[in-house]
Amino acid sequence: MPCVGKLMSTRSYHERMGTRDRIIDAAEQAIHEFGIAGATTKKIARQAGCSEALLYKHFASKESLFLAVLLERLPALHPALARLRLSVGQGDVATNLAEFATAALEFYSRAAAIASGVLADPSLMAGFRSMLADTNSGPHLPILALAEILRAEQRGGRIDPGMDAGAAASMLMGACFHRANLAYYVDLPDEDGPWATAVVATLVRR
Amino acid sequence: MPCVGKLMSTRSYHERMGTRDRIIDAAEQAIHEFGIAGATTKKIARQAGCSEALLYKHFASKESLFLAVLLERLPALHPALARLRLSVGQGDVATNLAEFATAALEFYSRAAAIASGVLADPSLMAGFRSMLADTNSGPHLPILALAEILRAEQRGGRIDPGMDAGAAASMLMGACFHRANLAYYVDLPDEDGPWATAVVATLVRR
Repeated sequence: MPCVGKLMSTRSYHERMGTRDRIIDAAEQAIHEFGIAGATTKKIARQAGCSEALLYKHFASKESLFLAVLLERLPALHPALARLRLSVGQGDVATNLAEFATAALEFYSRAAAIASGVLADPSLMAGFRSMLADTNSGPHLPILALAEILRAEQRGGRIDPGMDAGAAASMLMGACFHRANLAYYVDLPDEDGPWATAVVATLVRR
Repeated sequence: MPCVGKLMSTRSYHERMGTRDRIIDAAEQAIHEFGIAGATTKKIARQAGCSEALLYKHFASKESLFLAVLLERLPALHPALARLRLSVGQGDVATNLAEFATAALEFYSRAAAIASGVLADPSLMAGFRSMLADTNSGPHLPILALAEILRAEQRGGRIDPGMDAGAAASMLMGACFHRANLAYYVDLPDEDGPWATAVVATLVRR
């Protein structure tokens, strides 16, 4: 995503975007630059051209601001899951799943900076955990959504009906999440595309 | 692991352990208490009862100290992989793999605080990455080791020889890594044991 602030003058940028959007953009940029621990609300507010008080009028907590970055700025899993759901019964099921795996890899790779920053900060994690519980959401939900899609393909006879769809979804999402994290530590020997194809072929083999 | 420092007086603790071990213990405790960002070498040295200069005589960098905590204090993956390797051709292959998955879950759960702290800190990650490259190590190696074990079971006819062992290892390790991370965010609905059994059964089904 290009940094909007660098493409337009500060004045026109501020005129065109609402405060809430400017704060989310500034938070995303600050996390990228300083890590979560270094992305203070003071820095974020200054970058967004507003006061910290105004920032807290839009976001009750640092946790809810970071959640907004995750949900509104990253290439979300929702569209990829929606595409996969639409493709049930259409095209080649393994190709559809491999395309989804590639999108999941990209999402987890971008989300890693925020997810790891939350996990590494015990007090931020406590706030995040209770916020997720209150809103009945959480990072495990895409696994359940993927399992539902796999079951639909099983009902259509395109995937082995004896496969445990929940376990299969755990493995496909888990493999993508793990790989996205590993790539931060080491140069992985194989390319994402062939890797996703091999993983999906192994998962849905009969 | 019980906190050794709380079981013995500071004096006898210091007498019984070498400086290097005391520093690693202190680092583990500080990471648990403050997260990686808050676990400064100053705090760690104070807790270990030594100077920061002495700490840096034992560990060239904060990265190498954290790596020592990972390798020497956590319930490592190595013993679990060694047990799995010894069990090739013995007992029930699915049971052996499910036991390994449970050990991997525990390891990743304990390692998450350090791994996420490293990933969340761009400068710490840069140091970690180059240290791993220099030593030819990395968090992807257990996948390769697991794949080798799966291949040995394939040669023995106990796992479908048509299964891609590398892809299967990616999925089993990935599912464990992902689940260990998810458990920090939400209360997962199912228990680890039945989950591991279902994942392995799905992976090695014929």
